[in-house]
Amino acid sequence: MSEVIRFDGRRPDEARPLSIERPYYDYTSGSVLIKTGDTHVLCVATVEKRVPGWLEGKGTGWVTAEYGMLPGSSPQRIRREAGRKVGGRTSEIQRLIGRSLRSVTDLAALGEQSIIVDCDVLQADGGTRTAAITGAFIALADALTGLVDAGEIEKVPLTDYLAATSVGIIKGTPCLDLPYVEDSTAEVDMNVVMTGSGKFVEVQGTAEEKPFSRQDNDELLALAWGGIEQLVQTQRDILGLDLAGA
Amino acid sequence: MSEVIRFDGRRPDEARPLSIERPYYDYTSGSVLIKTGDTHVLCVATVEKRVPGWLEGKGTGWVTAEYGMLPGSSPQRIRREAGRKVGGRTSEIQRLIGRSLRSVTDLAALGEQSIIVDCDVLQADGGTRTAAITGAFIALADALTGLVDAGEIEKVPLTDYLAATSVGIIKGTPCLDLPYVEDSTAEVDMNVVMTGSGKFVEVQGTAEEKPFSRQDNDELLALAWGGIEQLVQTQRDILGLDLAGA
Amino acid sequence: MSEVIRFDGRRPDEARPLSIERPYYDYTSGSVLIKTGDTHVLCVATVEKRVPGWLEGKGTGWVTAEYGMLPGSSPQRIRREAGRKVGGRTSEIQRLIGRSLRSVTDLAALGEQSIIVDCDVLQADGGTRTAAITGAFIALADALTGLVDAGEIEKVPLTDYLAATSVGIIKGTPCLDLPYVEDSTAEVDMNVVMTGSGKFVEVQGTAEEKPFSRQDNDELLALAWGGIEQLVQTQRDILGLDLAGA
Amino acid sequence: MSEVIRFDGRRPDEARPLSIERPYYDYTSGSVLIKTGDTHVLCVATVEKRVPGWLEGKGTGWVTAEYGMLPGSSPQRIRREAGRKVGGRTSEIQRLIGRSLRSVTDLAALGEQSIIVDCDVLQADGGTRTAAITGAFIALADALTGLVDAGEIEKVPLTDYLAATSVGIIKGTPCLDLPYVEDSTAEVDMNVVMTGSGKFVEVQGTAEEKPFSRQDNDELLALAWGGIEQLVQTQRDILGLDLAGA
Amino acid sequence: MSEVIRFDGRRPDEARPLSIERPYYDYTSGSVLIKTGDTHVLCVATVEKRVPGWLEGKGTGWVTAEYGMLPGSSPQRIRREAGRKVGGRTSEIQRLIGRSLRSVTDLAALGEQSIIVDCDVLQADGGTRTAAITGAFIALADALTGLVDAGEIEKVPLTDYLAATSVGIIKGTPCLDLPYVEDSTAEVDMNVVMTGSGKFVEVQGTAEEKPFSRQDNDELLALAWGGIEQLVQTQRDILGLDLAGA
Amino acid sequence: MSEVIRFDGRRPDEARPLSIERPYYDYTSGSVLIKTGDTHVLCVATVEKRVPGWLEGKGTGWVTAEYGMLPGSSPQRIRREAGRKVGGRTSEIQRLIGRSLRSVTDLAALGEQSIIVDCDVLQADGGTRTAAITGAFIALADALTGLVDAGEIEKVPLTDYLAATSVGIIKGTPCLDLPYVEDSTAEVDMNVVMTGSGKFVEVQGTAEEKPFSRQDNDELLALAWGGIEQLVQTQRDILGLDLAGA
Repeated sequence: MSEVIRFDGRRPDEARPLSIERPYYDYTSGSVLIKTGDTHVLCVATVEKRVPGWLEGKGTGWVTAEYGMLPGSSPQRIRREAGRKVGGRTSEIQRLIGRSLRSVTDLAALGEQSIIVDCDVLQADGGTRTAAITGAFIALADALTGLVDAGEIEKVPLTDYLAATSVGIIKGTPCLDLPYVEDSTAEVDMNVVMTGSGKFVEVQGTAEEKPFSRQDNDELLALAWGGIEQLVQTQRDILGLDLAGA
Repeated sequence: MSEVIRFDGRRPDEARPLSIERPYYDYTSGSVLIKTGDTHVLCVATVEKRVPGWLEGKGTGWVTAEYGMLPGSSPQRIRREAGRKVGGRTSEIQRLIGRSLRSVTDLAALGEQSIIVDCDVLQADGGTRTAAITGAFIALADALTGLVDAGEIEKVPLTDYLAATSVGIIKGTPCLDLPYVEDSTAEVDMNVVMTGSGKFVEVQGTAEEKPFSRQDNDELLALAWGGIEQLVQTQRDILGLDLAGA
Repeated sequence: MSEVIRFDGRRPDEARPLSIERPYYDYTSGSVLIKTGDTHVLCVATVEKRVPGWLEGKGTGWVTAEYGMLPGSSPQRIRREAGRKVGGRTSEIQRLIGRSLRSVTDLAALGEQSIIVDCDVLQADGGTRTAAITGAFIALADALTGLVDAGEIEKVPLTDYLAATSVGIIKGTPCLDLPYVEDSTAEVDMNVVMTGSGKFVEVQGTAEEKPFSRQDNDELLALAWGGIEQLVQTQRDILGLDLAGA
Repeated sequence: MSEVIRFDGRRPDEARPLSIERPYYDYTSGSVLIKTGDTHVLCVATVEKRVPGWLEGKGTGWVTAEYGMLPGSSPQRIRREAGRKVGGRTSEIQRLIGRSLRSVTDLAALGEQSIIVDCDVLQADGGTRTAAITGAFIALADALTGLVDAGEIEKVPLTDYLAATSVGIIKGTPCLDLPYVEDSTAEVDMNVVMTGSGKFVEVQGTAEEKPFSRQDNDELLALAWGGIEQLVQTQRDILGLDLAGA
Repeated sequence: MSEVIRFDGRRPDEARPLSIERPYYDYTSGSVLIKTGDTHVLCVATVEKRVPGWLEGKGTGWVTAEYGMLPGSSPQRIRREAGRKVGGRTSEIQRLIGRSLRSVTDLAALGEQSIIVDCDVLQADGGTRTAAITGAFIALADALTGLVDAGEIEKVPLTDYLAATSVGIIKGTPCLDLPYVEDSTAEVDMNVVMTGSGKFVEVQGTAEEKPFSRQDNDELLALAWGGIEQLVQTQRDILGLDLAGA
Repeated sequence: MSEVIRFDGRRPDEARPLSIERPYYDYTSGSVLIKTGDTHVLCVATVEKRVPGWLEGKGTGWVTAEYGMLPGSSPQRIRREAGRKVGGRTSEIQRLIGRSLRSVTDLAALGEQSIIVDCDVLQADGGTRTAAITGAFIALADALTGLVDAGEIEKVPLTDYLAATSVGIIKGTPCLDLPYVEDSTAEVDMNVVMTGSGKFVEVQGTAEEKPFSRQDNDELLALAWGGIEQLVQTQRDILGLDLAGA
């Protein structure tokens, strides 16, 4: 496969450079700036000593997420959402991040408190929702570790590592970790959220141009796992938590 | 597999009874009431002689969808959305239906006009979004046929049939076409949209309780295709269109 | 009066055909699909075990209504209200239906619980608000009967039957039960809500084109009572309730 | 009928004292402060040199109204609507005032321009919507006279005088012009809008407590006409317009 | 300075005529109609027996303000805010009025109750926010006196008088109390809120056209104090309260 | 004054450390991250080739600003504004920044185009609005320089430098550049916006606890100018523009 098909010269199965800054803020143990190539997302976890109304009195906790893009985060200025209703895309992404984080959290062990993870995109170049999930997991882990350090819970109530990436078919070739220029022209676009032990949490595949075959699907899932394995290894190195799923 | 695992006695790979009433309204060629078990969705396609602003002057058309649930459609009355902002779930489903319909429509052949398909749930018992897609495709095909009959376009600008179903893992067993009672307790929940020729348009798998393995994923996709093949056969019988993808 | 003045050949004092389907949903005792000609309204009554804040602790109940039109219910697609503020017309009709239902309900005998009747127009051809009232009364009666059957209240807390119709002046002639084509060109338009014993609950007469005389007013009221008497007879046959007002 | 039944000693057929201040503002010819008892409404007509979109190019004009209550206008402070959606009651009243004014306006003779009449309640003691109509008619007539004086239209495009009042049944007795204390306890409440020549423009009768008979209806309408005749006489004295309907 | 620079012939340091009507409503002790030239503002103070959530249980009170303009209050009709979000200007003025009133109120002595002062502009000719503050102080003082008279608090919990005015630079000359025609063309515009003892509560100076010097600033502040001293004298004559700050 | 009165040991007239990173984004010439102590604001200027409707065809340009705080920017998570109306504080700050930038911009020389400067607070520790103004001026200057470089305008249409700072009275001592802990307890709080040549653009002084004297006012203004002079020197060193006002 000598042909160069990616605009930045990467191999089809090669991810963009990853960088993690933590903590980003002095005052909180759960703040992470994650960069995958030119996509930068600031993930901040805040602990709230209450749960949504429908969970009150059940002795269990909650994890949720909010997502936003700074207006200047892309060359075409994004209209600010303040004062306007939350767009469909924003809402869909918030639900995805929250659901993913909950899938590896032992909510009962968390007790009646909530963690809200704000994911704000400072610079956008494709894959913002998957970078947000990968970074939000670290912010969540740090915030939970803070609760353990404060003696509020006994152990970090996480059951596994969690990371996400995007894959897609570019000019017929399955590729890993798409920047904006690839994402907007991909024939198929797929976001995959997986655990450190290789299980699926979310698979969202969309045929942007034309429907895709079962074989395409299989190749994309394999490629995604390759990328996620690397992300999880970085999380492990940083966090050093011995999670059951690992 | 002698054990009965489904509350209504169905086999794991058995879909609920399907019924299609069309046209539902006298005054339009694109109105369909689809029933899959106790899930009833009214799908009405309306032609508008204009396109969204960003498509104006490009000579191409557009297909979009709106989705709603009547407040009385479930035993627990659903709060009416009028006067409130469109919820995240509603918005996410609208985007899914629209994207799916566009994947099998030749928008250039449609010319500068839009088709909006309203999908209103009269009774909800799980699988409303997938029933909406299956019914909306028929309403869309009827509306397009109406445009052909009126001499506005030469041939029906569809490239393939399109249907959708849900699958999930219930007590460890992959099952087809989940009603509400199963959907709300499934370990894994997956919505699959496919074409008549067996290609994927959308795959949305979510681990509700615990992450799922690659093997689970493969079994669910096979089960979904079995259900979708039957739905497409009914569409073929009703519409009689010879679509290229078939 | 040999001259045919109505587009569908009806006599001036002749109502459109009436059809009542009940229950419409399996899971609730108060669901009715009422059809008067091509106007179809689905009326669903839901019981809620609480009352609005200003009634709490007063030992009395409440009855209210919500009204909506499906976007596809008329040839010109109606813009969906979800995400937009409730329009003036919608709000006015909701208030009318609720007020009318309360006028024949013994709220004290209902006890501290509410009944909300959703009236959703599936197909609109004039007279949607009056059909909604006539159908909502049946849904309300069925829901109340359900409470009696469940032993929650002793007897159905209704004091009289209730139905509504529209009348208007078409080309100088008072006519009963106007479809859309008449309604939109009527010189005078009047909605009348009456009880089974012939008393007025609401009279809303509007001069659309030119003010009307006292004699016009009297003729319209007489015509309305003729139509309402028939509607109430159908309600009596269906419900079989021996209401004091009768 | 020697018994005093009204809390302020008025006879059943006696209206509250009427006062008209005009113009209220120096800078506009159409500003009126109308007082009926302790109900004070400021009515200001503004001319706009355009019509709503659906009337553009049709050569005809439009008259509309907006209605508001100052928060301090009643002993119980009314929550300000700014920043909240317009309430159902507000919207219903705005539509009523606009419809009534249009019924006596020759919109074609007005030409392609609009008149918007703002009716703001400074002090509320029942009958605000009917006082608004009576005052708004004067503000409208003054604004139209201003257009004639400016040479923009030839004659005042009004076809008749217009006034409104409320009537109701208090402890079994039909009474004219209800203040708040009566309005809130009336068994029947009716708003009547009539022209100077005694024709009906709007009749809105509501059984607040119990349905009312045909005879009640007839007595209330006669009482309303008595009150409206007086209001129109005052309008005639003030405006001096010789309207065709008179 | 023989040259006449102000369009209405006033000297640069001359305020517009002041008029105070109180009480404006019979039913409340805190209602004031303040007129400064053609700017008329109705200020109504309402007592509420509760405080905002974040003050509950702290034993201290709260004072806040709302501000609105009647649509007809200026020659160019102002779009009604009902149903639209509160504009930035409205919100900014509300916050200014509330902050100013609180600076001279002993909130602890008020106890756990709130006073909300509605300031509604009936006619606008510049300086509406400063007239509102001057009038709102009187309405507040009257409402507080009402609480003393009712035995609910011991003494009026005000620490000083409070009034406000606008100053600005017109064609290079500092002028007091700008009407609209001056305000809209002023090179510098400054609103000043001061106490009866000559202390500053708020200074808001804005260079509308070009930045201003320190000397300009000093002259404007001196001019403002001259105007405010007169306003406070009128307040003293009317209220007769012996406030500590005086 | 040997006593240490500031919690971080600074002298009363000492500003916090200043840091400017520019450009922050690769793709735009007008992006600046300004840090004053622990207050970090990202300022991004975007050029739009159109002006607000009321300026169309007048040949002049426009400069405006938007302001936001990331939810995690302070220890107490700030509720996200997306989907809610823009708060009063946000709106007030946006108006202040825009007004200030326009006071030193030659809008006519800019021609019919707009510059919008987004100011997003990444970390908040007091003085966010003044840091935003100081940083926004640099982003604006860079964006304008970009237009000059692109040959779209001849010279940078700025008339002077512009910077802002906060001053306040802490325990009786006037202090420069207040962090949150001082700002929230200051007796007087003042924001001052000045040009490089020492003229005032905005002065906003507020007595938070008790009114302040004329002498206090004078001292605060002198202190502010000292701080602003330093900020402008840094702007000069960075930008190297020879502005007329300097």
